[in-house]
Amino acid sequence: MKVRGVPQRTIQVADDGVAVEIIDQTLLPFAVERRRLESLEDAAEAIRSMRVRGAPLIGVTAAYGLCLELRRDPTDGAVAAAVKTLLETRPTAVNLRWALDEMRRALRPVSLGERVAAGYARAAALADEDVATCRAIGEHGLVLLERAWEARGRRERLDVLTHCNAGWLATVDWGTALAPVYRAHDAGLPVHVWVDETRPRNQGAALTAWELGQHGVPHTVISDNAGGHLMQHGRVSLCLVGTDRTTGTGDVCNKVGTYLKALAARDNGVPFYVAAPSSSIDWTLRDGVTEIPIEERDPREVTHVAGRLESGAVGEVAVVPEDSPAANFAFDVTPARLVTALITERGVCDATPAGLARLFPERCG
Amino acid sequence: MKVRGVPQRTIQVADDGVAVEIIDQTLLPFAVERRRLESLEDAAEAIRSMRVRGAPLIGVTAAYGLCLELRRDPTDGAVAAAVKTLLETRPTAVNLRWALDEMRRALRPVSLGERVAAGYARAAALADEDVATCRAIGEHGLVLLERAWEARGRRERLDVLTHCNAGWLATVDWGTALAPVYRAHDAGLPVHVWVDETRPRNQGAALTAWELGQHGVPHTVISDNAGGHLMQHGRVSLCLVGTDRTTGTGDVCNKVGTYLKALAARDNGVPFYVAAPSSSIDWTLRDGVTEIPIEERDPREVTHVAGRLESGAVGEVAVVPEDSPAANFAFDVTPARLVTALITERGVCDATPAGLARLFPERCG
Repeated sequence: MKVRGVPQRTIQVADDGVAVEIIDQTLLPFAVERRRLESLEDAAEAIRSMRVRGAPLIGVTAAYGLCLELRRDPTDGAVAAAVKTLLETRPTAVNLRWALDEMRRALRPVSLGERVAAGYARAAALADEDVATCRAIGEHGLVLLERAWEARGRRERLDVLTHCNAGWLATVDWGTALAPVYRAHDAGLPVHVWVDETRPRNQGAALTAWELGQHGVPHTVISDNAGGHLMQHGRVSLCLVGTDRTTGTGDVCNKVGTYLKALAARDNGVPFYVAAPSSSIDWTLRDGVTEIPIEERDPREVTHVAGRLESGAVGEVAVVPEDSPAANFAFDVTPARLVTALITERGVCDATPAGLARLFPERCG
Repeated sequence: MKVRGVPQRTIQVADDGVAVEIIDQTLLPFAVERRRLESLEDAAEAIRSMRVRGAPLIGVTAAYGLCLELRRDPTDGAVAAAVKTLLETRPTAVNLRWALDEMRRALRPVSLGERVAAGYARAAALADEDVATCRAIGEHGLVLLERAWEARGRRERLDVLTHCNAGWLATVDWGTALAPVYRAHDAGLPVHVWVDETRPRNQGAALTAWELGQHGVPHTVISDNAGGHLMQHGRVSLCLVGTDRTTGTGDVCNKVGTYLKALAARDNGVPFYVAAPSSSIDWTLRDGVTEIPIEERDPREVTHVAGRLESGAVGEVAVVPEDSPAANFAFDVTPARLVTALITERGVCDATPAGLARLFPERCG
């Protein structure tokens, strides 16, 4: 996607062919700065502190983080330790594990001397595969958006509500939930996005609003509390969100608050779609609510809000009394019964074991 | 309730017997400052800019605002103009209209020379009635909390989730939704409150957390997105919220996001109670979603967050890109079907016309 008109990816190997460059997402939307990752620890820190975030991008960043470690020590022991370090950065998204499994599979048959090259090659392939996956999700989702617009007589604005950021910033390019939105906008559909601000880290307000704005897609930021009201009044055509981990039964673990929007969508007859690349699917799980570990992050993300100060610098304000404790649950699980359909890179399916088996028969034997 | 150990009300006539003193709630929780209102415009501004907020407190403040105008001009024309000014400050809460109707009824038979005294007397009575109403809601609600604790075998912590601020800061004293919580805490029940931060104005984080802390009630601030996750995992015993306007059929218009919590409560079998003083009931309405006007406030409340800067001063940060528009819907409507019961000053009833008629037969003839 474009930043100030220039196409770029969220992650890429630097000109030296070694270091990895990311956009530091903790500074958005007020500063667009690229940051060099030069070691495993740089990559782990970038994931942990959410300089990169979004399940697909976390996976690719971890893959490159392993490459940086291979340069230092390509032995099996170092690989195992690096994988352990990277897996511990974020517990909920499954793409991280998936990407590291792919890397290990690629490295296993390779001699020590060739591992660096093999690692970078596989990481680059994972990045390219992510772009292809997102592009395909965009194609399949576009059909759903066109259908929704037809249902509205091709006259009214098509109002999409999204939560958190499942845009190009959450992936290598295009995004998952926002890929169909970009495709629809580029195809001339009058799409408008209600952007949940997504407390406590404001990924909607800070990231989704910014990237939609960079691409020229009409949008309006709302508090996370407002979506139910909008749906009650017929002002949401459909909901479209991403997923950090999807069970083989279609339960969706995504940014905390997603479940509340799914409940409101169901209560008001609004379609609730989830863009779910197969790398987000944890085929071993049957019950998202009981089986998926929900990350608890620093309560400071709730008690303090970061943004641009009047001086123009980036800073933060405390919004909670000093003596009041806070808790910070990062994700919740939307049961499959509330999901209208999953949009995968292979097409659209019901959020059921049978629906997934139709598209991924090799995983459901 | 107590502030730093000293009992006080949120609004009171100053020692000069004329001016009206409020706590400026826009400065909480970081500064506790009383502010003198000396004119109708002072009172209207205090309501409009939310120095006072909460449906019951708005009503009493408006009553005193009318008194301040009576000192300037006690004629029918001035009263009518003042009522119009005050009614326009906030469109959603019905207590405002109710309190001003009560004032006009009291003033109508009184000679011009006696109107000031009659006005202050009626406003003081409204304030005292509000305290009595809240105290009664506390009594009736306490029974529900005790029952919930019994159901948990009197062993576990009793977890109450609340949204926005319906505490003593929203009333003259005690609060509506928090009155039962204070009574339960004082009676020795191990009550703990999950406090929704309540974006965009953070009344939960700033006001509810502060007043619970002042009274020593255990509580934890959470993002508005987190309640569904907590309910899915059995960590909420019951929800308890206030209301800005209740229809004669039991629909509840309260701070935006309340509806989402009610949906999650229903989906997880968690009781959802609404503390509804009869002054909040609009007996003329049958359908809250279509009939209650929802205030749209300044988008700046969404794009900027106020709080304490690192310097200790109160300031704000921008959290949305400069070019991104925002919208700010202040309330939503929770349909009666999602409300387990209403807690009124006369007792607990079903959120139905029949339930309300049992407690308020004189309004339902």
